Amino acid sequence: MIKIGLLGLGTVGSGVYRIIRDNKESIEQKVGTELEIEKILVNDLNKKRDVEFDNELLTDQADDILEDPNINLVVELIGGEKPAYQYVMEAINNKKSVITANKLIIAKYGSEILKAASQNNVQVSFEGSVAGGIPIIRPLKESLVASNIKNIYGILNGTTNYILTKMTEEEKEFKEVLKEAQDLGYAESDPHSDISGLDAAYKIAILSSITFETYVDINSVYSEGIEEITLTDIQLADELGYVIKLLAIGKKEENGIDIRVHPAFISKSHPLALVNGVYNAIYLHGDIVGDIMSYGKGAGQMPTGSAVVADIIQTAKDIHYNRPNIYADKSSLEHEIIDIEKVKNLFYLRILVNDKPGVMSEVTGILGKNQVSLASVLQKHRLTPVVPLVLITHPVLEENLNNALKELKTLKNVKSIENVIRVVEDF
Amino acid sequence: MIKIGLLGLGTVGSGVYRIIRDNKESIEQKVGTELEIEKILVNDLNKKRDVEFDNELLTDQADDILEDPNINLVVELIGGEKPAYQYVMEAINNKKSVITANKLIIAKYGSEILKAASQNNVQVSFEGSVAGGIPIIRPLKESLVASNIKNIYGILNGTTNYILTKMTEEEKEFKEVLKEAQDLGYAESDPHSDISGLDAAYKIAILSSITFETYVDINSVYSEGIEEITLTDIQLADELGYVIKLLAIGKKEENGIDIRVHPAFISKSHPLALVNGVYNAIYLHGDIVGDIMSYGKGAGQMPTGSAVVADIIQTAKDIHYNRPNIYADKSSLEHEIIDIEKVKNLFYLRILVNDKPGVMSEVTGILGKNQVSLASVLQKHRLTPVVPLVLITHPVLEENLNNALKELKTLKNVKSIENVIRVVEDF
Repeated sequence: MIKIGLLGLGTVGSGVYRIIRDNKESIEQKVGTELEIEKILVNDLNKKRDVEFDNELLTDQADDILEDPNINLVVELIGGEKPAYQYVMEAINNKKSVITANKLIIAKYGSEILKAASQNNVQVSFEGSVAGGIPIIRPLKESLVASNIKNIYGILNGTTNYILTKMTEEEKEFKEVLKEAQDLGYAESDPHSDISGLDAAYKIAILSSITFETYVDINSVYSEGIEEITLTDIQLADELGYVIKLLAIGKKEENGIDIRVHPAFISKSHPLALVNGVYNAIYLHGDIVGDIMSYGKGAGQMPTGSAVVADIIQTAKDIHYNRPNIYADKSSLEHEIIDIEKVKNLFYLRILVNDKPGVMSEVTGILGKNQVSLASVLQKHRLTPVVPLVLITHPVLEENLNNALKELKTLKNVKSIENVIRVVEDF
Repeated sequence: MIKIGLLGLGTVGSGVYRIIRDNKESIEQKVGTELEIEKILVNDLNKKRDVEFDNELLTDQADDILEDPNINLVVELIGGEKPAYQYVMEAINNKKSVITANKLIIAKYGSEILKAASQNNVQVSFEGSVAGGIPIIRPLKESLVASNIKNIYGILNGTTNYILTKMTEEEKEFKEVLKEAQDLGYAESDPHSDISGLDAAYKIAILSSITFETYVDINSVYSEGIEEITLTDIQLADELGYVIKLLAIGKKEENGIDIRVHPAFISKSHPLALVNGVYNAIYLHGDIVGDIMSYGKGAGQMPTGSAVVADIIQTAKDIHYNRPNIYADKSSLEHEIIDIEKVKNLFYLRILVNDKPGVMSEVTGILGKNQVSLASVLQKHRLTPVVPLVLITHPVLEENLNNALKELKTLKNVKSIENVIRVVEDF
């Protein structure tokens, strides 16, 4: 018999409780033994809840779970840093295996947590922390182990993908769609963590650290959000054969790990281009397996609940069969994170210039001087006396582009740099 | 130490040998013990091979592997029914775990093989038998277990997907592209198994039997190939907002399992529509997890080798840690396979009729009488005195449609039923 302590009974917590309650028999058949939720930690014992259960199960004292020697599996679904991290460490130190969907603590403290688990010979699983219902962490550890994965491209945040999709489909501006998404519950009232790219940064940090077997300092991950994307950019992308997505990228390079989150132009013919709405996807390239993509719902009560319950089944089975901890932490500090300034990308530039002879040559002159060469030039919607110039560069070091942009801004005939968006073509 | 006997050293066999040789250290680190290929069964000991190895490893006597008590893991990569099936059973009965990429024997004898494995307390894994490098069998068994999967839609055959993609992109007819594919090695010289849908039928039978925990009689799986698809159909599909794919479908219905392989119109905006060339994909819907898609290379030395080696690592680990057989056969005979005549689909019909007044009303009259109602009608390329009529129906029972078609053929003004292709919209 496996006894579970559940920390937290919010959206995902209630989902997990329900899935286990409604599928008890088939889950126990898969585990090979009985499974029981012994205690649930909540903040408020008297709060009305939309799941029905025995009130005896509830406690507001974490130690009723963390110090109970009968509980061998702790499921942390509180979220956030405190007190989740402390609870997880205490559970591990009390020889309990842990399952969590908490991207923040795994991204920030994954290395310490896995080390402690290894020392205490217990397991820590966190499939629900990245891309909700999409099986990715276990496949990376089990099914794709024969391949050396070189790079990961992910659409890892449902809120921003929903916003970009709606802007594209309904031809609306960012702010309008954000408000609608908030009204519909697809975006938080404080949407900062999603729209700034931070949420995706946590997730790509977790995927990169597993895939490249390295420690990733979350503070070194470059992240740029979608706040500056306008409908004009989306429409120009469309004309040029692209869609705009918030991409999370992790790549193993000779000189370190290139890891970053930013909006990107991607070709309409790439499989990631059809990942719309709240869906997430992860696109990988491995030396042996080639290209692989997984697609599914990236968040929500049930998709994330499904991932957590799958972890519960596997871990319970491992406890039942007394299988040792097999995913020791292999991260090390040997890989540096490459500064974004040293990364090469293609860029889309939208610039407003005065409609005067010689302006184009001034602009391309400065670009050329900084090693920025152009793949295509689009001059549209002539609004004399000002002309919007749309440029796509060849691959160029970000620092060279930044130098060029700095110089361009000093030109009298350049009215403004309207937007700069990376173009990703090296999938 | 885990000792492996390899049956077969063809394309995938050499790939597996190479992957293990080139990644020995990292694989052994993952397994937790040493791994050694002890013997390799080949047909011809003297054949020239493009991998280099100690000739002592080779044998042409299967018993050198099957009867060697030191070998605890047998990897069957001979393919085909005989003698692969006998070897696999003998290995299991000699208490050896087995890994195979043989879709034929798993589709035909999976139930017996898994039962024997269970009785002998050994494991049988076959990730490489479906969709090459795409992790799907293990995720179905481990990561998606919390969900009740309702349906599976797969593009499971690379050859046919390559042919359909080329026909679409290069506006060529089936026969021309088939010949090119044969010249390039993407299609066999005898392409029957691929283009008839049989190969995909084996694979959807395997996926359905795992997903729906049922025995699937491969002979009851309806399969229809791509030989009759013309460039005209592809172009009309495009005009109507669809692409044509060879779909393998498995659905759990109230009255049984709906399992079939046939070409299908699918919407251009569906994620499967961008699965092109030799790529495969599997699209699932689960009650809890929602929609999930996995995409990758479906065949080839390295993708399939990657799946086989992942199975080797997992099984070797399970042997090393003395973990019992955990995937007992759960198939039963309780689910009937639904006859295709009793399945509802939308249909695309391309009919040549005489350009005479009243013909349209004759045609729609017969359709209506047989419960076939129309969603859209396209009348194009008027070539008096004959007009091509392109119809898309609402969902209709296949037997009703067949009755209607039979009647239509008797009309003097219907010159020919050029093609009938199912339209899949209920993803």
